[in-house]
Amino acid sequence: MTTSSAHTVRLNARKNDITFTSGLAPTYLQANLICLPSRYAQDFRLLCQRNPVPCPLLAESKSAGSFTELKSWMANITDSAIACDLDLRTDIPRYMVYKDSILVKFQCKDINEDWTEDHVGFLIGCSYSFENALAIAGLPPRHTIMKRNVPMYRTNIPLCPAGVFTGGTFVVSMRPYTLDQIDDVRSVTRPYVGTHGEPIAWGWDAVRALGIKNIDSPEWGDAPLTVDGKPFGLKTEENVVPVFWGCGVTPQEAVMRANLQGVVMAHAPGHMLVMDVKEDEVLDPN
Amino acid sequence: MTTSSAHTVRLNARKNDITFTSGLAPTYLQANLICLPSRYAQDFRLLCQRNPVPCPLLAESKSAGSFTELKSWMANITDSAIACDLDLRTDIPRYMVYKDSILVKFQCKDINEDWTEDHVGFLIGCSYSFENALAIAGLPPRHTIMKRNVPMYRTNIPLCPAGVFTGGTFVVSMRPYTLDQIDDVRSVTRPYVGTHGEPIAWGWDAVRALGIKNIDSPEWGDAPLTVDGKPFGLKTEENVVPVFWGCGVTPQEAVMRANLQGVVMAHAPGHMLVMDVKEDEVLDPN
Repeated sequence: MTTSSAHTVRLNARKNDITFTSGLAPTYLQANLICLPSRYAQDFRLLCQRNPVPCPLLAESKSAGSFTELKSWMANITDSAIACDLDLRTDIPRYMVYKDSILVKFQCKDINEDWTEDHVGFLIGCSYSFENALAIAGLPPRHTIMKRNVPMYRTNIPLCPAGVFTGGTFVVSMRPYTLDQIDDVRSVTRPYVGTHGEPIAWGWDAVRALGIKNIDSPEWGDAPLTVDGKPFGLKTEENVVPVFWGCGVTPQEAVMRANLQGVVMAHAPGHMLVMDVKEDEVLDPN
Repeated sequence: MTTSSAHTVRLNARKNDITFTSGLAPTYLQANLICLPSRYAQDFRLLCQRNPVPCPLLAESKSAGSFTELKSWMANITDSAIACDLDLRTDIPRYMVYKDSILVKFQCKDINEDWTEDHVGFLIGCSYSFENALAIAGLPPRHTIMKRNVPMYRTNIPLCPAGVFTGGTFVVSMRPYTLDQIDDVRSVTRPYVGTHGEPIAWGWDAVRALGIKNIDSPEWGDAPLTVDGKPFGLKTEENVVPVFWGCGVTPQEAVMRANLQGVVMAHAPGHMLVMDVKEDEVLDPN
């Protein structure tokens, strides 16, 4: 068994020695987790296939009930390369548990008691990977420099529905850039097809087009600021515009809107599963 | 070499003995064609990957300039099974040719003179296949019963951009059904992942949500009618609502909006490439 820094993070999460995973095990992929009763698995898989930009499906339980063995949906990544010595029930620092679509456990340390033989776990890509690539390209996201969380917003852009999953909309993350940086920002993030890829919209007009009511009041994460610490929506920075990417909160929102019956489990926001897969192993092969 | 009824249609198209392909070689897949200068191929492939519902990529030229050999993007379909004895330049009854994004040839019989060593042909799924499945399930689309073309509309739902392809929006096709048929209509079309799959929206509210200004004035195809031959938008039929699917005109529209330089070729609407692949060979394997 290879012991990677990613494996160490998982072991520390299992011992509950860590909380937020941002910045841990650099260059390793981090993933969102959603665990569903098996009767919803096929529809959820289809939801991801139909909406690969906000819902990039990386892997899932090899069979219902499996929390150690995963099937890979990533080109060029074998099942056994995803995460050695894995336990989906413990290897994330904090979890959320929903029963009949109502939150019943907030940031609990494991899901040993809630997981059943009928559950299927899904891993969804996370934008931490392309943030590293942006930083390397000299385009570090502002929230990382200011040590804040990325702002995330609900939009009115509909997901393509799939079975029970109807009425969902894109959730987006936002990073500010100047107009002359946008071509480079698009190019740098474009190959990251497993982790949302290039932006879906940019510019102040996009705020209205996406149906975002107030750029200074994100639904998740921290409010965006100018470099001087003022509200971003005041538009005091010349040529600086918001740039929006598909966000891994999208499938969680879609699950919550579907009003599912039974027990659903997910990672707590910011507390991700760190995989043995390197960021540059899941770039678009084309 | 297998001689299928699909092969016969292609040979008849090559001899220019046929025009519209609707209803020809039943149970065989029909495809939309787009041929682009090779410098745009990677971005177009990514556009399809990011928007698989309106832009289901089935196959493409094995290499730039190849009009006989294709690479398959369909699970379970090998390259050689796509279409025997193929010539993309002649085996469609009618073509459209654009130069620097301006239409220069309308419904021409072949593209022998326009095709170059630098062109890449792409085949995109078409909803003819699931219409057959709907008819078999006792849910024949109204336009087929009335021997009209399916109505197609521009929407305001943005595509996820990819490289040069920005600013595109979904084009949708519409078939009317009663409210109590919608669950069955969704189930029947759901497995057709290579040909748009289940509807993206339904109901009269969806007309507004999609930004369709007048249901009686589709941008392509024939205006929808009630079974009594009245304008559909009068809503005189109890419980009958419009049901919308992603449409293969979407990638053509996206190409036109990208203002590409050089020669772009496509099939003329309604004049498709008939493949050797059967409709039930490209169902969702999950």
